[in-house]
Amino acid sequence: MFIESTREIRLASYPAGLPTAANFELATTPVPPLKQGEVLVKNLWMSVDPYMRGRMVNRESYIPPFQIGKALDGGAVGEVIESSSPRLKVGDVVLHQFGWREHVVATDSAFHLIDTRLAPPQAWLGAIGMPGMTAWTGLTRIARAQPGETVFVSAASGAVGTIAVQIAKILGCRVVASVGSEEKAELARTLGADAVINYRSARDLTAALHMAAPEGIDVYFENVGGSHLEAALNLLKPNGRVALCGMIEQYNATEAPRGPANLGLAIVKRLRLEGFIVSDHWGHYPEFVKAMAGWLAAGKIQTRDTIREGLAAAPDAFIGLFRGENTGKMLVKLA
Amino acid sequence: MFIESTREIRLASYPAGLPTAANFELATTPVPPLKQGEVLVKNLWMSVDPYMRGRMVNRESYIPPFQIGKALDGGAVGEVIESSSPRLKVGDVVLHQFGWREHVVATDSAFHLIDTRLAPPQAWLGAIGMPGMTAWTGLTRIARAQPGETVFVSAASGAVGTIAVQIAKILGCRVVASVGSEEKAELARTLGADAVINYRSARDLTAALHMAAPEGIDVYFENVGGSHLEAALNLLKPNGRVALCGMIEQYNATEAPRGPANLGLAIVKRLRLEGFIVSDHWGHYPEFVKAMAGWLAAGKIQTRDTIREGLAAAPDAFIGLFRGENTGKMLVKLA
Repeated sequence: MFIESTREIRLASYPAGLPTAANFELATTPVPPLKQGEVLVKNLWMSVDPYMRGRMVNRESYIPPFQIGKALDGGAVGEVIESSSPRLKVGDVVLHQFGWREHVVATDSAFHLIDTRLAPPQAWLGAIGMPGMTAWTGLTRIARAQPGETVFVSAASGAVGTIAVQIAKILGCRVVASVGSEEKAELARTLGADAVINYRSARDLTAALHMAAPEGIDVYFENVGGSHLEAALNLLKPNGRVALCGMIEQYNATEAPRGPANLGLAIVKRLRLEGFIVSDHWGHYPEFVKAMAGWLAAGKIQTRDTIREGLAAAPDAFIGLFRGENTGKMLVKLA
Repeated sequence: MFIESTREIRLASYPAGLPTAANFELATTPVPPLKQGEVLVKNLWMSVDPYMRGRMVNRESYIPPFQIGKALDGGAVGEVIESSSPRLKVGDVVLHQFGWREHVVATDSAFHLIDTRLAPPQAWLGAIGMPGMTAWTGLTRIARAQPGETVFVSAASGAVGTIAVQIAKILGCRVVASVGSEEKAELARTLGADAVINYRSARDLTAALHMAAPEGIDVYFENVGGSHLEAALNLLKPNGRVALCGMIEQYNATEAPRGPANLGLAIVKRLRLEGFIVSDHWGHYPEFVKAMAGWLAAGKIQTRDTIREGLAAAPDAFIGLFRGENTGKMLVKLA
């Protein structure tokens, strides 16, 4: 199969605050012929994730910033449609980091063959992919949640949150979930949350969390920042743990965010707050995949996706993450 | 020896902001006759410590608040002058929690016999007592500082800080110290600090810390809070650790303190911030005493005391802690 050109989304400019369509550019780009060891992959699904906002700032971080005028990248699943590799054949479904484009040519080692009998292609961008692995890592390796403990999960209807709620239940925890709408609250309950807070209607998040967890919380899975973290610090029991996974509230901030005024409670309550990046833990990915495949097969983990169609919809899908437009994993279907 | 009455300092009122002399009351109180198993102790030294401010607030915490009209308490060292106990004899020197008074009668189990050959009586309130144990616990058990790492110690001229600087050097670390005057800076250098920041003259603490530790810091020993913590978060290397020991800057705050605006860095740099209370770690006190006695004997740890004379000076000594009036351990000499 010979393809002369494909389409990709490039970063047109670094956003100030919430990104807009003008920060992105849809471009056509040539597809080079394959060299030995390379494959041509047609993308089926691509992921948009909140962490990508951090790469739209021109500064040093744990992962380099996106470059103006270059294609963005990120998680994607595609099908091999041409191969000069002995390792991958036409029809193989692969997970890789060349998202935000319809086709890609690269050396076979950049692609991870996935087993679609364990989970459908798009789940490898969600429950059994990076977001699911993030939820599992935060709960089991960072916060080390124990059976009988109370776990508070913020952004509980998001890609990571929906899985975190369900894994915490599997671990034998009581789960308090925070979400931003009544519809999402209903979802959180369906996924097993024992108590749900709608932070948009709760006037006082500490009071709401106290009502939901009168005896306090042992673990806070932090996805939001700001007043969520303050409420969690107020309610954490002695020796409580905070898995610092994300602070989506701050990703588009144009002023310095307000830090938690009650961080001193970490001393009197001997709290541990620990930040983590899932990529540091990939050595445990096979262990996670085995567990998650079992939970999916047993119906113990349900997946939820919000799907946008076509590459041109990707910027809007991404921007929608910060408007709370996704329930579960936000995905772009490319083919 | 029969003593009819003694003097004690009582809490007259809960302070608002920085305590004043009016919050304290010097009172005379009867000394009861000894019952079986009790001893009469004449206090030689008493300790004033910043954590006591937290007990001058009428709220639930890890340690109950002081009660209005009752004697304060805290670390003290005294001599047994009368004994109805088979365990303690006249002349024994003991460490105990009945500070803020000249004499005390209590059951023998409330007193810990100390070996004044290992260190002089007052050192058991400082280097080889709670502040020293706090420094050791924070560095070795919480932050787990490793040889070759860079450790930043705030309030480095204080009771905990002076010891933390020296233990960090013994552990083979490079030490950056923050202090509040040129005189204290000189002391920190004498104690072995490799670089010293005078936070009162540094306009930008992050810039000053960057200058002192161009490659960043691995460990922050937090005694201050506020802009010190923000600067530390800015300079911490990936996988850095913060031992949250105290936030003296906030103890007299009458408004909610400003939290660190850059706590999100804990995620991208995978930082661990962990609060601790030394009393949780007393099981390790014998291990610490053994190590510290050796360091003191070898001249590897120097002690510094700021001494006020007489019980009536105790409130002023305590208030002085928040004005930075102490260099090293603030002590009140009672006899």
